[in-house]
Amino acid sequence: MAKPIIVQKFGGSSVANVDRIKAVAQRICETKTKKNNIVVVVSALGDTTDDLVELAAKISEHPPEREMDMLMSTGEQISCALVAMAVKELGHDAVSFTGAQVGILTDDTHTKAKIQKIGARAIRKALKENKIVIVAGFQGVTKDNEITTLGRGGSDLTAVALAFAINAKVCEIFTDVEGIYTTDPRIVREAKKIKEITFDEMLEMASLGAQVMQPRSIEVARRFNIPLHVRSSFSKEEGTMIVKNTQKLEDISVIGITCNKAEAKITICGVQDKPGVAAEIFTQISKAGVMVDTIVQNVGYARQTDISFTVLKSDLAKALKATNAIAEKLKTGEVLHDKNIARISIVGSGMRSHRGVAAKMFQTLAEHEVNIDMITTSDISVSCIIEQSQAEKAVKALHKVFNLEG
Amino acid sequence: MAKPIIVQKFGGSSVANVDRIKAVAQRICETKTKKNNIVVVVSALGDTTDDLVELAAKISEHPPEREMDMLMSTGEQISCALVAMAVKELGHDAVSFTGAQVGILTDDTHTKAKIQKIGARAIRKALKENKIVIVAGFQGVTKDNEITTLGRGGSDLTAVALAFAINAKVCEIFTDVEGIYTTDPRIVREAKKIKEITFDEMLEMASLGAQVMQPRSIEVARRFNIPLHVRSSFSKEEGTMIVKNTQKLEDISVIGITCNKAEAKITICGVQDKPGVAAEIFTQISKAGVMVDTIVQNVGYARQTDISFTVLKSDLAKALKATNAIAEKLKTGEVLHDKNIARISIVGSGMRSHRGVAAKMFQTLAEHEVNIDMITTSDISVSCIIEQSQAEKAVKALHKVFNLEG
Repeated sequence: MAKPIIVQKFGGSSVANVDRIKAVAQRICETKTKKNNIVVVVSALGDTTDDLVELAAKISEHPPEREMDMLMSTGEQISCALVAMAVKELGHDAVSFTGAQVGILTDDTHTKAKIQKIGARAIRKALKENKIVIVAGFQGVTKDNEITTLGRGGSDLTAVALAFAINAKVCEIFTDVEGIYTTDPRIVREAKKIKEITFDEMLEMASLGAQVMQPRSIEVARRFNIPLHVRSSFSKEEGTMIVKNTQKLEDISVIGITCNKAEAKITICGVQDKPGVAAEIFTQISKAGVMVDTIVQNVGYARQTDISFTVLKSDLAKALKATNAIAEKLKTGEVLHDKNIARISIVGSGMRSHRGVAAKMFQTLAEHEVNIDMITTSDISVSCIIEQSQAEKAVKALHKVFNLEG
Repeated sequence: MAKPIIVQKFGGSSVANVDRIKAVAQRICETKTKKNNIVVVVSALGDTTDDLVELAAKISEHPPEREMDMLMSTGEQISCALVAMAVKELGHDAVSFTGAQVGILTDDTHTKAKIQKIGARAIRKALKENKIVIVAGFQGVTKDNEITTLGRGGSDLTAVALAFAINAKVCEIFTDVEGIYTTDPRIVREAKKIKEITFDEMLEMASLGAQVMQPRSIEVARRFNIPLHVRSSFSKEEGTMIVKNTQKLEDISVIGITCNKAEAKITICGVQDKPGVAAEIFTQISKAGVMVDTIVQNVGYARQTDISFTVLKSDLAKALKATNAIAEKLKTGEVLHDKNIARISIVGSGMRSHRGVAAKMFQTLAEHEVNIDMITTSDISVSCIIEQSQAEKAVKALHKVFNLEG
């Protein structure tokens, strides 16, 4: 029977310089035993990617995306060669591969390509020769042999997709934090590392602002049921396991709290309350290239209603321009906007079976005199948009009331 | 009929920074007209290659050569992507290719691979679409999809080999000098740019110390009769054409003078004058990994002779160790060595038909009281090993006496 395979992914901060590369190599060699095989995925060294982007920006304001991929992919190629050297230096056999060499086939959407297929032949062959395999993350190749990159969170995605392709028993994501926390430890000192969390909960936390992993790779891990282990490259401590079902007898109601300050709110007042109006508004905004997050429309009175929605702060100018145009066309009332908002969310699969969780959240906020501006809920989360200056106070109170301090 | 193709190769100093990359792009766009197509080969930006070598050295004293190729090849990938961006910025369509993408198939001798075949399909397709093609120099790929590099002078070789594969009318080598000079202008201020030189003469000059181009790519150009144009990337002046036969009615006797201070001399005294001795000596030295250049053995007397030879100064210690060992075994006389030598050579196809050229050289040296230590000749060159401190004086005198000042 083939040995079980562990996939380990090291981010840019884990390979930021020569000393860290050596430490990573040490770690890889410690994991490699007679009983298992290792496939490693690495990001580019520290600031390499930023440096390359800056270089390109000096040459062209809008560099062609195909050439950006050609340029950017060198970052991971450098780090995988260096890590392979460092592993060999420790006496283990190792071999590095680019995305193209491994056979990470993508579509041709340069700078944010989607993986279509993974040919794991080169990896399997190297593993059979008892080599440690080091793969350049973040990159792939089209069927026409064009180099592509996978966009944000691309190296995580490479790791998860490879773990699926070679049937790895676990995919370890090494990062500069110890794991997933009940909330941001910079806000709440009592925040605790979560031992185990479900894909659904992690996805919800990630999309609501927890920044450890991109939702994209968690989705792939969920689809193919690849257990993820998010842990620190600077300590031997166990981190957080992200799995299909946790081992707990009963889900706890709330597993984590997120706080996201990246959004701004736009409100269109006095919109006619008739079919097709919302569709027209959001079609125009989408055409302007703006992603809308939460949308809230309340029942109207006097055949009029207000529609509020949030967009990324970085998209606010674009979004306002499009909104004003459509508001004028539809003869609505005023268009308001507010940058000083924060989204506070509670997340937990237990909400499905525990009642009164949302009510407890609202009550807690009320007790701390935090005014709620907008509310949205999903199956396993409740989010409130509040004034940004009250965000820390709100998170601290909720963290305490939902017993996350242990 | 297909448009004629010009291959342009830009070295590391030509693309050392963003401003130079933009200047190179400008130059490429000026060359690209409705009447011809352009294929560009670029080296890595300025010091990139040295930086990568240094990085690897910090990780391993003897980094594996396969991983070195993986690492080093990123340098040219970066520069070709940036040049393609800069060309596009000027409104021309351009596309960059790695060695692997172009199909530069090599053997698997990592860090000094030999080109076996060039598949020009990707280039032809791009040229048909009226694109300017930018190729990463110095690199190739094995049939097993392993990345290789071509060793010293590798980017020149890429350019010449591509020029052959796509049947280019000329291969322009852009460098930081204006062309090939009658001698080193730093030694003789009156040195003149040579307008036209034959492959044979250029090869002789290069192997005798002229450093503008590596002999390797000149040999390939000669074999396939690819005219080379060595010129400056900083000026519009015509440089030096390297061709099969020059246009001159009669060859001039001496076209250039070289001076090489990289060698050291070893003499084994009192070697038995019998068959097989020289073979044994040089077999042992070769086994020690030392390349021997000139060997001089004079007729002996009393059944003994002295054998002198030159090696690179950097190999002297290794060479002496091997020489002393074999000298002891053969019971020869003393082993002497001298680092303070220079090789002064005169080169010219005209020597084949002009008599007295060597004599004139020796006479000139004698008149300037330069003692000649060793002499060797080839079909189109005469070399004298002299004391290093007299090299400048010798070159100046010879440059004048052979009418190279114009």
